[in-house]
Amino acid sequence: MGKLLRINTKEKTFTFEETPDTYAGLGGRALTSKMILDEVPATCHPLGKNNKLIFAPGVLSGSPAADSGRLSAGAKSPLTGGIKESNAGGLVSQKLAKLGITALVLEDKPEGNDYSLIKIDKDGVSIESADDLVKKGNYAVMETLWNKYGKNVGVLSIGQAGEQCLKGASINQADMNGRPGRAHGRGGLGAVMGSKKIKAIVVDDSGAPRVEIKDPDAFKAANKRWVEMLRNHPVTGEGLPALGTAVLVNVINEAGTLPTKNFRSGRFDHAQAISGETMAETIEKRNGITTEACHPGCVIKCSNVYHGKDGNFLTCGFEYETIWAFGAHTTIQDMDQIATLDKMCDDFGLDTIETGVTIGIAMEGGMIAWGDGQAAIDLLSKVGEYAPEGKIIGNGALFTGDALGVDRVPVVKKQALPAYDPRTCKGVGVTYATTPMGADHTAGYGVTANILSVGGTIDPHKNEGNIELSQGLQIATAAVDAAGLCLFVAFAVLDNEDGLPTIAQMLNARYGLNLTPDDILELGKSILRNEKEFNKKAGFTEIDDQLPEMFNEPVPPHNVPWDFTIEDLQKTLNF
Amino acid sequence: MGKLLRINTKEKTFTFEETPDTYAGLGGRALTSKMILDEVPATCHPLGKNNKLIFAPGVLSGSPAADSGRLSAGAKSPLTGGIKESNAGGLVSQKLAKLGITALVLEDKPEGNDYSLIKIDKDGVSIESADDLVKKGNYAVMETLWNKYGKNVGVLSIGQAGEQCLKGASINQADMNGRPGRAHGRGGLGAVMGSKKIKAIVVDDSGAPRVEIKDPDAFKAANKRWVEMLRNHPVTGEGLPALGTAVLVNVINEAGTLPTKNFRSGRFDHAQAISGETMAETIEKRNGITTEACHPGCVIKCSNVYHGKDGNFLTCGFEYETIWAFGAHTTIQDMDQIATLDKMCDDFGLDTIETGVTIGIAMEGGMIAWGDGQAAIDLLSKVGEYAPEGKIIGNGALFTGDALGVDRVPVVKKQALPAYDPRTCKGVGVTYATTPMGADHTAGYGVTANILSVGGTIDPHKNEGNIELSQGLQIATAAVDAAGLCLFVAFAVLDNEDGLPTIAQMLNARYGLNLTPDDILELGKSILRNEKEFNKKAGFTEIDDQLPEMFNEPVPPHNVPWDFTIEDLQKTLNF
Repeated sequence: MGKLLRINTKEKTFTFEETPDTYAGLGGRALTSKMILDEVPATCHPLGKNNKLIFAPGVLSGSPAADSGRLSAGAKSPLTGGIKESNAGGLVSQKLAKLGITALVLEDKPEGNDYSLIKIDKDGVSIESADDLVKKGNYAVMETLWNKYGKNVGVLSIGQAGEQCLKGASINQADMNGRPGRAHGRGGLGAVMGSKKIKAIVVDDSGAPRVEIKDPDAFKAANKRWVEMLRNHPVTGEGLPALGTAVLVNVINEAGTLPTKNFRSGRFDHAQAISGETMAETIEKRNGITTEACHPGCVIKCSNVYHGKDGNFLTCGFEYETIWAFGAHTTIQDMDQIATLDKMCDDFGLDTIETGVTIGIAMEGGMIAWGDGQAAIDLLSKVGEYAPEGKIIGNGALFTGDALGVDRVPVVKKQALPAYDPRTCKGVGVTYATTPMGADHTAGYGVTANILSVGGTIDPHKNEGNIELSQGLQIATAAVDAAGLCLFVAFAVLDNEDGLPTIAQMLNARYGLNLTPDDILELGKSILRNEKEFNKKAGFTEIDDQLPEMFNEPVPPHNVPWDFTIEDLQKTLNF
Repeated sequence: MGKLLRINTKEKTFTFEETPDTYAGLGGRALTSKMILDEVPATCHPLGKNNKLIFAPGVLSGSPAADSGRLSAGAKSPLTGGIKESNAGGLVSQKLAKLGITALVLEDKPEGNDYSLIKIDKDGVSIESADDLVKKGNYAVMETLWNKYGKNVGVLSIGQAGEQCLKGASINQADMNGRPGRAHGRGGLGAVMGSKKIKAIVVDDSGAPRVEIKDPDAFKAANKRWVEMLRNHPVTGEGLPALGTAVLVNVINEAGTLPTKNFRSGRFDHAQAISGETMAETIEKRNGITTEACHPGCVIKCSNVYHGKDGNFLTCGFEYETIWAFGAHTTIQDMDQIATLDKMCDDFGLDTIETGVTIGIAMEGGMIAWGDGQAAIDLLSKVGEYAPEGKIIGNGALFTGDALGVDRVPVVKKQALPAYDPRTCKGVGVTYATTPMGADHTAGYGVTANILSVGGTIDPHKNEGNIELSQGLQIATAAVDAAGLCLFVAFAVLDNEDGLPTIAQMLNARYGLNLTPDDILELGKSILRNEKEFNKKAGFTEIDDQLPEMFNEPVPPHNVPWDFTIEDLQKTLNF
């Protein structure tokens, strides 16, 4: 096993520690969640010295397994008050794994206002002043660091939002072009990093050996099947590479489950203007990039580079959920304005889902007009100015709703709902309600069987079968997050009997183990149990596993309400 | 029994309803808490149509019983998310009782932005436009209404804070001079009134009969003993009349439990400058009033009128907790600046405790400098300007701490701690932690036996005996709140064996009952059980019955930490 790297941010010291038995064999979300349960007092203040910010590569990260370069970040969440794992691509996961680091743990907090930069390479760790980076956005920070430390170092950094400890703050990762298009977005983990006065972390694996593969031939064979599986599935092999995740705009709108004007309708009249098809056309016309990987070894390549009217770079990693949040949810129809808002979020270090939903709440509360993209840009710019409006908006949807007296705020466990109406996509609705993460589509993506006919078909409007759907997906997703695999592999895994066995074979070949698919699912269950236990200790009850009352209203065009009982929802993670 | 007056704020209709059996015999807090438990869905949004705002006179209100003119206001709290009863003097309680109204219940909420005024008199109810009062502070509103409806009508109104639905918003009552010096301060009930677009309620009991007394002679005899008891106790007969509640500044500072600079010390070097003695001297020098009642029939008269340097009116109802919150807590030393902040809170309709603690948090977060009174005044003025800073500050201490990334915020159940350090006044600390109201000294005033040697003596620094102290006081207080009696009668009741029997005799004579003191205490218990049940249904657990981790640090000068276990604290209301 590798080592835990613990950094005391107050004393500016570090220790490498043999991974103790209790954490052995765990990676990614399995490790961050277990460590938080064991080491973070559940009732501590998320911005206090007792919280820890933990980064853990998945157990396949660093290996040649396709799409295995995702990094888990975990802490007690400033947004939800519960446990949080937030997952992103980029370069750091594979580099940490190659450096033999199982987890990077930031502990304690300094008292002053000085920021530090952590540099990790094969020779050790240095903790340097980051005062030259303070008040800079992630674009400038990453450019500076790539210029200083060489291209292709992995970078984790916070922008102005993280410095202000805002609940919507993300931790951004340099993508393969050194831009902050990848983010540990959800749950405000950037605020935890800001509270510990760490502006950036640079990970350089130059000179590090490859990760050890116990059975190289078996690994190679399994990975070959794995790549084929991903390339042959219509979603991971065609839809996502061609149009990115924005392929979903027209699909979800057609299904009547694209939340529009703060969840008043499931259909947006102007969906075409913000669709994946329109986006791809625009990108091509302006010489952007429609198909790009977020980390080496990805074969899905759902990312992109979006240029502005002038043909110059405007934003990158421009995703469906972002386009929805700033688009249909707020009724802004201009793709360039939405791209600008995305870029600003990446630069300030803000979760685009939380922030987009928040802009809609600011419209609901009369702060700016519905659909006014320029007003949204002006309002969001206040975050970069450290202005009072920014301290409202940057703290997310519930906070902004509370600031403005809005009683219609779509959150679960204080986290904003993503881009699928739970009433007409009940599989994901059950996930929103019950995942320990707060409303999060990636925790159990019921859109698969509800809308996309992946892994079977379950009526998205009826309750029947959707508890079971969410349960299965939440368990599998937790395991996928522990492996360091991209969530999108699930499309292929759900439609291939050989999917889970292939993952088991890669793990077995990598570590010399004898895991079965059942072992992997048992790992997923244990992750969820740990997360629920932390939340219980933090004061969560079944009352927190519900949608807010606004969803009792039926949503057009299908006029379906949300009507699961508390008791039924509790069955979801009752194992 | 009297009638329930229900007002539908959306339809602008009202109904008088016979008080149903389930609410029979209940008044004040007993009635508001029972109605909220029975009629308000515990998980509803506090600003939504499903919350109800309920005003109930105590069961002795309207009678000649001394100090029985307190009104209970109840709702699901926008600040705590739990049940709330907030209690104030003024003219409304006695007038509602004389009009035969057991409770006034505001239901539903309108959709537009038009405000209404509710006028209640012996002929019925009218619901009128209040558009001429919008954006006006409570001083102007009350002056307008007394001019329009006659002096001595009872008035409940909200200022700019309530209109903005801020969590720190109070509902103010006209005092005997028609000024908003009395407030249902805690828990943000002004925001509930604002969400229902009710700007003011005018209660005129002209022409109403006296309340019926079943046994006038017995009542007269009991009330005579009651008045003697209040007049003969050193606190209610001497300390409070002479110096008001500010008599406590020097006492509490001397005891080392006056929270200073956001609870960093229990002693304030400049306590003398903000003491009751200094205040009384200043009031006399400037021809103010040191001794005034908040409602007719009060014999304690702890209120006052404070003039500015120019000899003109500056503020009224200037209380110990207010002086502490804006004074020792923020380290502001200038009594006139503190009086100005008090006046602004009364005018905007803000809880002075929540707001004073919030100003300290703004200092903690670097928004303004410690001890800078003028900066505090400038910042608070933003609430009246509907500015973004005001939407932060007006939402209270936790909200402001979250806006500024402050991890040292003294709240329980999201409500700011009042003016006694829980570490060195553990009897009140147990109350802060365990009362269903959120941190509230008035829910079980352990200062009595901890510091004042009233009702016995219990070491304020040791855990022993303080659970039991808080338990007894919480039960008795709930009953006192149900009777409509001022909390301060407790001083006399605790030191007189004849206290509780005398209250029972007044109730029996008023209603023709045979209550014993035990019945009264059983009522207190049932109130607390109802409140705990509501909170449980709203998602509260024993985790919410704790102080935040900042209180684990010992506080000078006595260097005592807070170290009750969750299990011990749960014994407090375990009946």
